[in-house]
Amino acid sequence: MKLASYKDGSRDGQLVVVSRDLGTAHYATGIATRLQQVLDDWNFLSPQLEDLSHALNHGKARHAFAFDPRQCMAPLPRAYQWADGSAYINHVELVRKARGAEMPESFYTDPLMYQGASDDLLGACDDIVCPSEEFGIDFESEVAVITGDVATGTSADEALEGIRLLLLANDVSLRQLIPAELAKGFGFFQSKPATAFSPVAATPDELGGAWQGGRVHLKLESVWNGKRVGLTDAGPEMTFHFGQLIAHIAKTRRVRAGSIVGSGTVSNKDWARGYSCIAEKRAIETIESGAPKTDFMKFGDTIRIEMKGEDGMSVFGAIEQKVAPLAR
Amino acid sequence: MKLASYKDGSRDGQLVVVSRDLGTAHYATGIATRLQQVLDDWNFLSPQLEDLSHALNHGKARHAFAFDPRQCMAPLPRAYQWADGSAYINHVELVRKARGAEMPESFYTDPLMYQGASDDLLGACDDIVCPSEEFGIDFESEVAVITGDVATGTSADEALEGIRLLLLANDVSLRQLIPAELAKGFGFFQSKPATAFSPVAATPDELGGAWQGGRVHLKLESVWNGKRVGLTDAGPEMTFHFGQLIAHIAKTRRVRAGSIVGSGTVSNKDWARGYSCIAEKRAIETIESGAPKTDFMKFGDTIRIEMKGEDGMSVFGAIEQKVAPLAR
Repeated sequence: MKLASYKDGSRDGQLVVVSRDLGTAHYATGIATRLQQVLDDWNFLSPQLEDLSHALNHGKARHAFAFDPRQCMAPLPRAYQWADGSAYINHVELVRKARGAEMPESFYTDPLMYQGASDDLLGACDDIVCPSEEFGIDFESEVAVITGDVATGTSADEALEGIRLLLLANDVSLRQLIPAELAKGFGFFQSKPATAFSPVAATPDELGGAWQGGRVHLKLESVWNGKRVGLTDAGPEMTFHFGQLIAHIAKTRRVRAGSIVGSGTVSNKDWARGYSCIAEKRAIETIESGAPKTDFMKFGDTIRIEMKGEDGMSVFGAIEQKVAPLAR
Repeated sequence: MKLASYKDGSRDGQLVVVSRDLGTAHYATGIATRLQQVLDDWNFLSPQLEDLSHALNHGKARHAFAFDPRQCMAPLPRAYQWADGSAYINHVELVRKARGAEMPESFYTDPLMYQGASDDLLGACDDIVCPSEEFGIDFESEVAVITGDVATGTSADEALEGIRLLLLANDVSLRQLIPAELAKGFGFFQSKPATAFSPVAATPDELGGAWQGGRVHLKLESVWNGKRVGLTDAGPEMTFHFGQLIAHIAKTRRVRAGSIVGSGTVSNKDWARGYSCIAEKRAIETIESGAPKTDFMKFGDTIRIEMKGEDGMSVFGAIEQKVAPLAR
């Protein structure tokens, strides 16, 4: 089934079930009003939502309406955790190579993850609001999962059982703030403003055979200012699968229901497939010609991120954002 | 007023108002059931809670009962944000000096903060559960605030207006995991397990004149295995006040209601006042004699963290935790 949170003026939105083809939706009223509620009590509530989803997909839901992704908040408009990985090691290799940094051997066996802010997550069509273009505004097209409860010490394979929903993320980064921030030693902070998510979150079964071994074997399209800049494969080159990422978090603590875990920028060794973030394009330019040529995003720029299923249909709907200045 | 979240088998607990002397409590039923609800709608709900608090303090609340801190979850048992600072620059100086690292000039003007996990926050008397003693288990006695909504670009002074509640935190750290983790460059992750909070969160007016300039001018006591190891002053040496910490977060994004912001380990230049984390004691030993002598915490160890008001009474109740192995 596919779920979304419709804007209703509240902080958490109103839970809706969305049809497989993203054509229609139905309020989940009577079952649950907010997605977090469902994650808190998944075994009891999700079968009821599945029934509604089944009726909706067969045109039998009584109060269905046309689904409009512009009415969507993030599936979880605020979450108790947003932890993001760098699971596509090619991305890390490229960025480090461009700045002449060694690739530590441990990076191939131990996932790189950072703790992100989750108090303010953006809907798929919300503006990327930024105080200054000078911050180096970049998109990062990613795949993400939402988990149930996962116990401390859970293995990577077991952790896969904790995955409830899949979705897409635009982990917006402010590249010009990153070097100074990472030099301070405590990781990203101001350089990671609010992250945006796809209109819809889908249960793994919606992906059919494309969901395999904790990886999504589908292509992720990134369109910047109307031009396709990336069609990267999210599957085979994901060095650490989602179970491994979740197990990495759970090594020293519990992971609680409603935690969102990201893959990091989807990246492939074959440069012909393009890029899922501008930093990578600039890294390639630096490696090839000694300096980056492509600028970061400007006010008014647009970014569209989408993933098509094996049937050619959009799985999660598209993230479609515009960069905007902060209104003062 | 003082607020707490009582254990009731739910994920968020049941909101109670606690009397000023921490002697009695009263369910907030009829006003709000969860603390996050109050933070979401502060201007409407907090006056009603203030009325109840007033009645309780005057022995006129009809269904008051004896307050038991062991029944407390964290005031916010799960939060949408936990961002922790290193606002006592003396702590940073000590730790860096012990490992022969320079103190960057920017550290005196630009707060050092990290994004912590907030999906699983511990009650004041919950065990510190850890898979291994070898991880180097340490306490960190801190002051923290819970905010309302704060807009992007808010100044440090304005940000003070966004502070709703004050409380204490034990930001447990796994010291032996930190060097390798920070070397990866993305900040703390596995080295910061679940943080614990005081039984009670209090509105700033409860501190009287001790709450001044965004700092808490009171002493923070840390008692490790029954021995007082620290009685540090949380006031004058807080290099960055809470408004500055919140403004630091808000530089590139909104801060949403229910965000918890920590001060970092409370630390004073006068070593005679003791320490608020073992790492600092070990740093002093290293500076004095070339090597640390004090071990980190072992299973069975206890830590008690408390702050007394100008009237000598406990302001937030005590954090009293035991270190325990992970049950397999």
